Amino acid sequence: MESNENSSSGLNPTTLSREPEDDEAIEAISRYEDFATVDWIQDANMERSRRHKLMNSLDSSWKSWLWLSYEAGQAWIVALLVGCTVGLNAALINIISEWLSDVKLGYCSTGWWLNQKFCCWEVENEIGSCDDWYDWSMRLNFPRDMLFINLVFYILFASLFAFVAAFLVKSYAPYAAGSGISEIKVILGGFVIKGFLGLWTLIIKSLGVAMVVASGISVGKEGPAVHIACCVGNVISRNFSKFKDNKARKREILSAASAAGVAVAFGSPIGGVLFSLEEISTFFPLKTLWRTFFCALVATVTLQAINPFRTGKLVIFEVTYNRDWQFFEIFSFIFLGVFGGLYGAFLTKMNLIVATYRRKYLRDYGVQEATFLAFITAVIGYFNIFLRIDMSEMMSILFKECEEGDYYGLCKRPQTASVMNLLFWATVLRIGLCIISYGAKVPCGIFVPSMAIGACFGRFVGMGVQALHHNYPSWPIFSTCPTDVPCITPGTYSFLGAAAALCGVTKMTVSLVVIMFELTGALNYILPTMITVMVTKAVGDLFMTGGIADQMIKLNGFPFLDKEDHLFGISVSQVMVRDQTVFTSTGMRLENIEQILDECGYSGFPVVEDRKNMKLTGFISRSELKYAIDKAKRTRAISPSAYCFFSTEDQNTPTVEGNSSSFIDFGPWIDQTPFTVHPKLPLETAMDLFKKMGPRAILVELNGKLIGLLTKKDVLRAVHSKPVKDPLLPSRPEFHRGMSGDSNSGHYFSDSEVELDTLVRR
Amino acid sequence: MESNENSSSGLNPTTLSREPEDDEAIEAISRYEDFATVDWIQDANMERSRRHKLMNSLDSSWKSWLWLSYEAGQAWIVALLVGCTVGLNAALINIISEWLSDVKLGYCSTGWWLNQKFCCWEVENEIGSCDDWYDWSMRLNFPRDMLFINLVFYILFASLFAFVAAFLVKSYAPYAAGSGISEIKVILGGFVIKGFLGLWTLIIKSLGVAMVVASGISVGKEGPAVHIACCVGNVISRNFSKFKDNKARKREILSAASAAGVAVAFGSPIGGVLFSLEEISTFFPLKTLWRTFFCALVATVTLQAINPFRTGKLVIFEVTYNRDWQFFEIFSFIFLGVFGGLYGAFLTKMNLIVATYRRKYLRDYGVQEATFLAFITAVIGYFNIFLRIDMSEMMSILFKECEEGDYYGLCKRPQTASVMNLLFWATVLRIGLCIISYGAKVPCGIFVPSMAIGACFGRFVGMGVQALHHNYPSWPIFSTCPTDVPCITPGTYSFLGAAAALCGVTKMTVSLVVIMFELTGALNYILPTMITVMVTKAVGDLFMTGGIADQMIKLNGFPFLDKEDHLFGISVSQVMVRDQTVFTSTGMRLENIEQILDECGYSGFPVVEDRKNMKLTGFISRSELKYAIDKAKRTRAISPSAYCFFSTEDQNTPTVEGNSSSFIDFGPWIDQTPFTVHPKLPLETAMDLFKKMGPRAILVELNGKLIGLLTKKDVLRAVHSKPVKDPLLPSRPEFHRGMSGDSNSGHYFSDSEVELDTLVRR
Repeated sequence: MESNENSSSGLNPTTLSREPEDDEAIEAISRYEDFATVDWIQDANMERSRRHKLMNSLDSSWKSWLWLSYEAGQAWIVALLVGCTVGLNAALINIISEWLSDVKLGYCSTGWWLNQKFCCWEVENEIGSCDDWYDWSMRLNFPRDMLFINLVFYILFASLFAFVAAFLVKSYAPYAAGSGISEIKVILGGFVIKGFLGLWTLIIKSLGVAMVVASGISVGKEGPAVHIACCVGNVISRNFSKFKDNKARKREILSAASAAGVAVAFGSPIGGVLFSLEEISTFFPLKTLWRTFFCALVATVTLQAINPFRTGKLVIFEVTYNRDWQFFEIFSFIFLGVFGGLYGAFLTKMNLIVATYRRKYLRDYGVQEATFLAFITAVIGYFNIFLRIDMSEMMSILFKECEEGDYYGLCKRPQTASVMNLLFWATVLRIGLCIISYGAKVPCGIFVPSMAIGACFGRFVGMGVQALHHNYPSWPIFSTCPTDVPCITPGTYSFLGAAAALCGVTKMTVSLVVIMFELTGALNYILPTMITVMVTKAVGDLFMTGGIADQMIKLNGFPFLDKEDHLFGISVSQVMVRDQTVFTSTGMRLENIEQILDECGYSGFPVVEDRKNMKLTGFISRSELKYAIDKAKRTRAISPSAYCFFSTEDQNTPTVEGNSSSFIDFGPWIDQTPFTVHPKLPLETAMDLFKKMGPRAILVELNGKLIGLLTKKDVLRAVHSKPVKDPLLPSRPEFHRGMSGDSNSGHYFSDSEVELDTLVRR
Repeated sequence: MESNENSSSGLNPTTLSREPEDDEAIEAISRYEDFATVDWIQDANMERSRRHKLMNSLDSSWKSWLWLSYEAGQAWIVALLVGCTVGLNAALINIISEWLSDVKLGYCSTGWWLNQKFCCWEVENEIGSCDDWYDWSMRLNFPRDMLFINLVFYILFASLFAFVAAFLVKSYAPYAAGSGISEIKVILGGFVIKGFLGLWTLIIKSLGVAMVVASGISVGKEGPAVHIACCVGNVISRNFSKFKDNKARKREILSAASAAGVAVAFGSPIGGVLFSLEEISTFFPLKTLWRTFFCALVATVTLQAINPFRTGKLVIFEVTYNRDWQFFEIFSFIFLGVFGGLYGAFLTKMNLIVATYRRKYLRDYGVQEATFLAFITAVIGYFNIFLRIDMSEMMSILFKECEEGDYYGLCKRPQTASVMNLLFWATVLRIGLCIISYGAKVPCGIFVPSMAIGACFGRFVGMGVQALHHNYPSWPIFSTCPTDVPCITPGTYSFLGAAAALCGVTKMTVSLVVIMFELTGALNYILPTMITVMVTKAVGDLFMTGGIADQMIKLNGFPFLDKEDHLFGISVSQVMVRDQTVFTSTGMRLENIEQILDECGYSGFPVVEDRKNMKLTGFISRSELKYAIDKAKRTRAISPSAYCFFSTEDQNTPTVEGNSSSFIDFGPWIDQTPFTVHPKLPLETAMDLFKKMGPRAILVELNGKLIGLLTKKDVLRAVHSKPVKDPLLPSRPEFHRGMSGDSNSGHYFSDSEVELDTLVRR
C-alpha cells in the first residue's frame, strides 16, 4: 500500500494536540448541562491528558513525589472517606429510627432520648419493658390497660412522622422521594441529573427515611440507603480535583458508594459489591471492583465499630442455622421460588398501575397521601401482630429456629392453625399495603417489605409442611427425616421465602444469594437459596424482564440503554437521523452559529468541510462551543458578523491573524476523532458500542461523507417503538426527528405523564 | 443537511444482505485456524443472522414451537450437562486420588480397591487404621515396625505415580501439562488453540491430576480443575448447533464451565462464579452470569449428591469457627497480609526464573523431572509431618480450633516451640518445593500449595501471638481479651494466612474472599479476610501487577490484551501498520490472489476500490476467501487467470453472468462494515475497542481513504516495547511489520524461547 500523502506520520491524539488558550478554562466549562448524557470516551481522554500534563510538569523533587502519591491515592482516599461516612450515617439512621419507633409506644422516664431497649438496658422484663418505660396511657395517668389510648397515640405518631417526612421532602428535596435506585442506575449509565445527589437530598433523605420507617409504612430503608450512599459519594468526591469535572470518573466513586450503601443496609460487604456490579453499574472495570470492595469494607467496619444495636450484629434480622436440609424439601424450595416469581410480577404490575394513577390524580397531594398511608397502615396493622411489629424485627423472629424460644405462638403446636391464619393474612395485607405505599412521595424502598412478605409466606408454608410431617410421619416422602432432631425447620422456609420475594421484585441473582448468605452464614443453605432464586427468576421472566427498577426506568422514560435491550435485524441507516444540523469548517458567521444554538437543542454538532461534499472534519459539543463564544465575546470586541472557522491541522484554513475582531477559530474545541460507522452496520453492534464504550453520538459516514448521526436516544426510540419490519421501506418519519435535544428528552415510551416532570420539562 | 445521494435509504445490515450460494457452506467453513484470534463482532452478527433466519423459517405449528423452545433452551441444557459432568468428574478425581494416596501407605486386605478410610469404615482405631489395613512392611511379612520398608514403598509409589502421569501427558496430551489457567484466560479472551480443550486433554488431565496429587508433589488439583471443566464445556457444547461454529458463543459456555470447576474444587459455587468473572473471563454479559450461576449450582449439587468423602462436606478442609476476633488482632491480620504480598511476589519471580531454565535445559526431560520431583518431595517431606501429610488434610488440621481435638501437638502448650519450629521449616521448604514444582510437565496447580504455605505460616504466627498472650497477659494490648474463652485462635490465623498466600499468588480479591467465606461459613471472619486480602493486594502490587497466570501469559507471549494494559499519550497512527497488503475491488486475477495468500500469513485483507484512491469498500478474512476459492474450483472449471471481483451493492462492478469460468465474485464474503477509526484517535480508545468490542482488526481511515490497519497484536507489541516518546518522530520500523500472521505470532516480549513452542512454530 502506498503511503498516503494526507496522513502526516505521527499525528498526535486530539486531546494532546488541543491546546486552548488557557488550560484552566477547559476545566471550568460546565461540560454537562442538566439532563445531558455523559460522553465516556471524551471524559476518559480528558483524564488521560490531565494525567499526561501532570506527569510532564513534575520533576524528581520530593514535592513532586508527594504530589504524585496524592494524585495516585486520591481515589482510595475518597473511597475511605465515603466508606466511613456511609457507615456513620447508616448507624445514625438506625439509632434515630429505632428511637422514633419506640416513641410511638411510650417514653423513657430516665431520659427522653433513650429508646425502650436502652431505657431498660439489663433490667428489662420478659416483654422487653421495665419500670422506667412509660407507655402513653400511663404517662397521661390513665390506667395501664387503657390500650385504646395507646392505639390512638400510636396512630397519631405514625401519621405525624409520615407527615413530617413528606413535608420535608416536598419543601426541601423533591428528589429524596422514592427509592432512587432506578435513577441511580440511569445516572451511572451516564445521565446527568443535577441536584439528585446533592447535600440537601442527602440530609432530607437520611432524616426522612428514619421517620418513614418509624411511621410503620410498608416501605424499607435499604433502597434509600443506596441513594443516600451515592449522595455521600458525590458530595465528598466533588471536593477532589480528579473527580470534580470528570463525570465518568465520578461514576466510579458512585459505584463504590452504592456498594457501601447495600453493605451497611444488609451487613453484607460482598453482597454490596455484587449488587453494584450486577444491578447498578453500567461500567465496572477491575479497578472499580477493588475500590468498591474497599469502600464496602470500610463502611461495614465503621458500622461494626459503632455497633448501633449493641448486639454486635450489623442488621437486626441476622440469623444462624445449624441444622441440615432434606433432599425432599427441594419441592418446597421450588414452590417458594414459584411464589416469589408470581409475587414479583404481580407486585410490579400493580405498583406501576398505582404509579400511573398517583401521577394523574395525586400529583399535588404527596404529603396528605403519605400521612394517610401511615394512618391506614397503623390501623390495619394493629389487628395482626405480624403487621404491627417492625418488619426487621418480625423477620428476625420468623427466621428463628424453634429451639431459640417461642414468639407469638409460632412454635406451639396447638396454635398452629391460628398462627398460620395470621401469617396468611399478614402476607395478603402486606402485599396490598406495599402496592399502594411504594412510590409515595417519601423515601421508600421495596427490599425489606418484599422480604417481610416472603418471610410471612415462607413461615406459613414451612408450618404447613411441618404439620403434614407431624400428622403423617409415615409418608414415604418423609422417610429420610432424622429421628433425633426436628425434620422441618419453618424458620428456613421463612428465610427462603424472603429470598424468593426479594428476587421476584428485583431480579437479582448472584448478589441476592450472597446477601442472604452473609445474613445467615449458613453454608448448608447456599444450595437451597440458589435453587429458590433460579426458580423465581425463571418464573418471573415469563411475565417481564428486569426488576421493578427497570420497569420504573421505562415508565419514566429515562434515556437508559439496558444491557438486555436488543433490536435484531436492522441496520444503523434505518434508525439514524439524516437531517442533522451541521456546521461548515469555513464560511459561517457568528450570528448564524448563535441562531442555530438558539433554535436547536442538540447537544453537539458535526462539522463538515462544506455542505456539498459533506466531508466530516469533526464534532463540536454545544457546551464547549458556547464557552468558546462567551470567552471570545468577553476578551475581545467580536462582531456578530465575524467569520467562524473550525480549523483542523490538516486543512488549509485561511490564516487568522491574532485576536482580530472579525474572526473566531473554534478549531481547538473540535473533537477530531468522533466515532464513525458504516450505514450498513447492524444496529446491534452500534448498541454494543453505546453500551460498552459510551460515546454520546456516533456519526454515520459512507466513503468519507457524513450521511447521518445516531444517539442513544435514537436507539431507545427504535427499541421501544416496534421498528419497521421491511428494511426496504423508507424509515419512519419519527426516526427523522433529529438528534433530540437533551433538554426536551423523555417521552419515548408512553404519552402518559412523566414522573419527574421537572426533569423533562424544566 | 441535504439528503446524500449515495445513501440509499434502508440499507440492510451486511449479515442479512449477504446470501452466499449455499447456506450450510458458511457454517462449514473452518472460520478460525489454529492460533487465530476470534472476531467477536463477526461471530455475534453470525449468531444474529442465524437466529433471524431460523425465526423466519418457522410457522406457528407445534413442531416449530418445540424447535424454538429447544433453540432457546439449548444454552441451559448445555449448562446443565456441563455442570453434571464437571461434578461427576470432580468426584471421580477425588476418589481416585484418595485411593492412590493410600496405596502409597499400604493396602486393604478385604478389597484392593478400598482406600484406608473405607477399608476401616466404622472400625478404625485412633490413628485411622484397622486390622484389615496392611502397610507394606506387614504385607511383605516384615515386622510391623520396619518403617524403613514403608518409607521405601512410599517413595517408590510416589515416583511411580509421577512418572506415569508425566508419561501419559507427554505421549497423549501435551496440553494437559501445567495448570492451564493462563491459556484458558487467553482462550476466553478470543484466541484459538486447537486441541487444548479436547477430549484427550480432558481424560489425561483428569487421570494425571489424580496421580500427581497422590504422588505428593507440591502442586494442587484446583487449577487443573478449571482446565478440566473447560474441556468438559468444550467437548459437550460442540455437539450443539448453537455453539459448534460460533467461537464467541462457545466462550460463554467456557466461562460457565470454569466457574463450575472452581465451584467443585473449593465447594464454593458463588466463589466460582466470581472467579470466572474476576479472573478468567474477558466478556461477561448478564446472560452469561446467570448461566454461570446455574452451571456452578448444578456442579455443586452433583458433587454434594455423590458425596465422595462420605462426610457431607464438599472439600476436605471445610471448617467452621464460632469464636469472635479481637480488634487488636487487626495488626496480626495486616502482618499476614504483608507476608502474603511478599510471598506472592517472591514465588512468582522465582518460578518464572525456573520456567525459563526449564525451557532451556529440561525441555526433553519432562518425565524424568516429574519423577525426580516426586522423589525429592517424598524424601524431604518424610522428616516433617506438615510436609508429609496431604496438603488438604494438613489444612483441615491447621484451620481447626484447639477445642476440636489435638493433632501433632498443635494444642499442647509444652510442645509449642518444637511445633512452631516444624511449621516454620514446613513453610520455607514448601515454598522451595513449590517454586521448582509448579510448571513441571504434569497437571499442576498453584492454589492449594499456596494455601498450604500460608496455613503453615499463619498457624506459626498464631501460635506465636498465643504464646505472647500466655506469657504476658497483662500487656495493655491484650486488655480486650475475654476471660472465659481463649483469646487467640491460631486456627483462624492459619485460615487467614492461607487466604493471604493465595491472594498473593493469584491477586484475586472479591472471589477469594467469597471462596474463603464459603469454606468456613464464618460470618465473623469476613472482615478479617477482607482486611488481609486488601493488604496483600496492596503489597503485592508494589512488585508486580497481575497474578502468576498473567505473568505466564506475558512470558509465553500470548496475544492477550489485559484489562490493565495501558498506553497513554500516543495515537493510533503511531502504532498502526501502513504497508498492509490490500485487494482491489476489480482488476485482480485469481493467481494474484492465491500468490498473496501464499506469501502473507495475514488473517484478513482490506478491500479498496483501487490502489490510487484507496477508498475502502470492505474487509475479507483469509479463511473465507480460501473457502470461496476452493468452492469455485470445486464446482466449476475456474482458470488461474480468472478475474476476481469484490463487489458490494453500491458499486458498479461489471455484471458477471452465471458461473462463468473466467470470473469470481467474492462480494458475498466481504465484511462491508469493518470498524474504522480516525488516525488521531488516542490509542487508549482503540485499546478499549479491542477490549470491550473484540474486533479482529480496526481499519484506519482518513477522509474515506484507508491509511492503515491495527490489530490486537500491533497494540500488544507497542505496549510491551516502550513506545517512541516524541510523537513527531516517524514511528519505529518494527511498527511497520504488517498485520502479523496469526500462524507465526508469539515473540513480542522477549527473545527467550517460548513455552508452548508447538503453539508458535507448528
